[in-house]
Amino acid sequence: MNSKTKSFTERVFQSAAPIWEKNHLHPFVQGIGNGTLPEDIFIFYMKQDYVYLIEYARLFAMGAAKANTLDTMAKFSQNLHETVHFEMELHRQYAAEFGISRKELELTVPSPINLAYTGYMLNAAYSGTLTDLVACLLPCAWDYREIGLLLKAQNGDTILSNRYEKWIHMYSSNEFISMSQWLIELMDNLTKGLPEGELSRLEKHFLTTSRLEFLFWESMYRQDSWPI
Amino acid sequence: MNSKTKSFTERVFQSAAPIWEKNHLHPFVQGIGNGTLPEDIFIFYMKQDYVYLIEYARLFAMGAAKANTLDTMAKFSQNLHETVHFEMELHRQYAAEFGISRKELELTVPSPINLAYTGYMLNAAYSGTLTDLVACLLPCAWDYREIGLLLKAQNGDTILSNRYEKWIHMYSSNEFISMSQWLIELMDNLTKGLPEGELSRLEKHFLTTSRLEFLFWESMYRQDSWPI
Amino acid sequence: MNSKTKSFTERVFQSAAPIWEKNHLHPFVQGIGNGTLPEDIFIFYMKQDYVYLIEYARLFAMGAAKANTLDTMAKFSQNLHETVHFEMELHRQYAAEFGISRKELELTVPSPINLAYTGYMLNAAYSGTLTDLVACLLPCAWDYREIGLLLKAQNGDTILSNRYEKWIHMYSSNEFISMSQWLIELMDNLTKGLPEGELSRLEKHFLTTSRLEFLFWESMYRQDSWPI
Amino acid sequence: MNSKTKSFTERVFQSAAPIWEKNHLHPFVQGIGNGTLPEDIFIFYMKQDYVYLIEYARLFAMGAAKANTLDTMAKFSQNLHETVHFEMELHRQYAAEFGISRKELELTVPSPINLAYTGYMLNAAYSGTLTDLVACLLPCAWDYREIGLLLKAQNGDTILSNRYEKWIHMYSSNEFISMSQWLIELMDNLTKGLPEGELSRLEKHFLTTSRLEFLFWESMYRQDSWPI
Repeated sequence: MNSKTKSFTERVFQSAAPIWEKNHLHPFVQGIGNGTLPEDIFIFYMKQDYVYLIEYARLFAMGAAKANTLDTMAKFSQNLHETVHFEMELHRQYAAEFGISRKELELTVPSPINLAYTGYMLNAAYSGTLTDLVACLLPCAWDYREIGLLLKAQNGDTILSNRYEKWIHMYSSNEFISMSQWLIELMDNLTKGLPEGELSRLEKHFLTTSRLEFLFWESMYRQDSWPI
Repeated sequence: MNSKTKSFTERVFQSAAPIWEKNHLHPFVQGIGNGTLPEDIFIFYMKQDYVYLIEYARLFAMGAAKANTLDTMAKFSQNLHETVHFEMELHRQYAAEFGISRKELELTVPSPINLAYTGYMLNAAYSGTLTDLVACLLPCAWDYREIGLLLKAQNGDTILSNRYEKWIHMYSSNEFISMSQWLIELMDNLTKGLPEGELSRLEKHFLTTSRLEFLFWESMYRQDSWPI
Repeated sequence: MNSKTKSFTERVFQSAAPIWEKNHLHPFVQGIGNGTLPEDIFIFYMKQDYVYLIEYARLFAMGAAKANTLDTMAKFSQNLHETVHFEMELHRQYAAEFGISRKELELTVPSPINLAYTGYMLNAAYSGTLTDLVACLLPCAWDYREIGLLLKAQNGDTILSNRYEKWIHMYSSNEFISMSQWLIELMDNLTKGLPEGELSRLEKHFLTTSRLEFLFWESMYRQDSWPI
Repeated sequence: MNSKTKSFTERVFQSAAPIWEKNHLHPFVQGIGNGTLPEDIFIFYMKQDYVYLIEYARLFAMGAAKANTLDTMAKFSQNLHETVHFEMELHRQYAAEFGISRKELELTVPSPINLAYTGYMLNAAYSGTLTDLVACLLPCAWDYREIGLLLKAQNGDTILSNRYEKWIHMYSSNEFISMSQWLIELMDNLTKGLPEGELSRLEKHFLTTSRLEFLFWESMYRQDSWPI
């Protein structure tokens, strides 16, 4: 297949494959998959993920602010609205099942890697265009979908006995899949016909945030916090 | 009343009063009030206002992106969502009654004053904080409410015979009043305890956008466009 | 000549030609050229131009912040430095010859069109990339050069008897010409290979700021200020 | 001393003291101080610091773009100019002494903590005001001065025999001290009279970037890179 005819998401799916594979095989991810992840680690993650999600919502907001068409603005606006009004509520309900209060969630101090990840994306969103923004937020939306579907398949019929079933369910749900799919298609639309210089800058965003996904799993598994 | 005990919105309501009064008495506004505004002028305005609204929606998006609390983020997100998914649809329906198609609305080239107004607000939103942003978008939200209520009162029982009744109705509706009220209260919360230097910078935003409201009415009434 | 082989600046030089021609023939510009422009108009302009220049300097700063290479960052940084440390001083000295104090210059309230122009550029600089920024600031840098050279040629040997000789001299100087030339070449480098969708968005920036140049001359000639 | 009468920099100098002390005692810093830091570690650091400096220069550029007075704009512009035109050249010359070419410097991939640090500052600069920006970039400018002066005093007369003498010299030089002092005074001017809510937000910036300084020393000492 000629590089001219490959879409941008086909290109980065290939170049990010070794990183994503390490994500899929990570003990954190596999520990969710087979239900053996220690609860204290999951609780640490839930709290970090909550404050991550707030910054992720800011990216949807920036997407609406920088949208090039009314339809794209409407779609980002809808995703922002659903994140802030429903998804975060789901997060709070699920966290409560693990004994984490809303207050605890909101007082979480983002860990260094959490800060590195959201800071990188927000900086790209402010200093760049909608296209930079989408290149940064896509790996999280897309690889979580990959992970959700992978773990769902690995569990099969016995998924209800997995204590992290709800998490797997969320990221393999039709809603999540279609949000992720919309971002993939938007990415391809926005990159159509761009010269190689632009594409490789965008690929760098995609690979860097894919690597930050890996570091995020790593640092959650180790419950990394600030040394001082 | 001591200036220390006056809220920021009480302060700027007073300092902007001469400008707002000119807005309320403007032939465009009074022409809507008594139904005598020529339709071609109203149609010109509807089209300009539609593209203004798109930029205004970007300000709500920036408000969500720069929000200091989760509640404020949720509120901006909701206003953005309602603007993009409902208010603009109302605009399109109302425009259709005057024979303006959706395509025509979307192809409108913003007039110089339209550009001046939205450019000023967006620049303040990007270069400043949530507080700058709110100081800029408040005059439109607040003075439209004043105008809506004023014209409703002037019309009284005979309002249904006014050909611009729907417009008056929209800006005197409970939904619009409560959105406007939320912004007023947010403005006062954000400015509590700020030193005079900050307050006078914010007041300048409020007065400048109040003046831009006036120039907007003026330029709509004259159907000002680009000379070249 | 095929549109594929035309550089971006060749393209926009053609499409902006009717606007630039109106700029060159404008009574303000011709009044500088033959020294007949009334001094009160020139003084009004000097003050407005001073506060315009401050915002223009912010664009150079944003150019350094968003630069894609170290060389480009260095060049924007140098232009910013020279604007703030030398060009504005020249402006102050020249203004003093017309009896305008530094304080007066700095207290100038930007007129509506002044605000429209700088707001448009700054908004594009914040919401877009370096390329958007350059497309916005190029017409001013380039057309001032055209005007400087045109008026210098029109004056010929008798230029020293023109009371606006220094102004003509500044914008036909080697320093100004080479700054302008650098921006033209940067623009062409940044746009190489971009798809038509991007190019036409950038052309819109170029044409809009060319039109704002015209409105600026117009509004200076009329000494337009805020009506309230 | 009453908290009302304490300046902002006095306040944060106290609250950051435990972090800064850990920085000063860090084996990396002490290894520079007594000349025992292994050269491969120093070379790793030189390369990372070079790409850090490019992002730091962007912050000076943003400072000029968001400056509230002409004097502040001029000062940021001067610092940007000196960073890009002189300091980076010094860096290149010094790096060459350790066998690192300009090309190598420029191709350096920023490490995760490097990215975390610059991303945090740039995001604060874009989403906030000049005051947020200064709160973020101050710890680096100020604590490097502290370290420069400390190591200079520790070395005393024998400093010329320390292989890292030039580094110590640079950060204890009058030029560096006065740049740092200007930022301290600017910080205090910008925070005068701000309510506690604003001050504690700014203090959070100062403490977070102080912690990122520590993590930077740590990660340089370990020569941390991307695991994938």
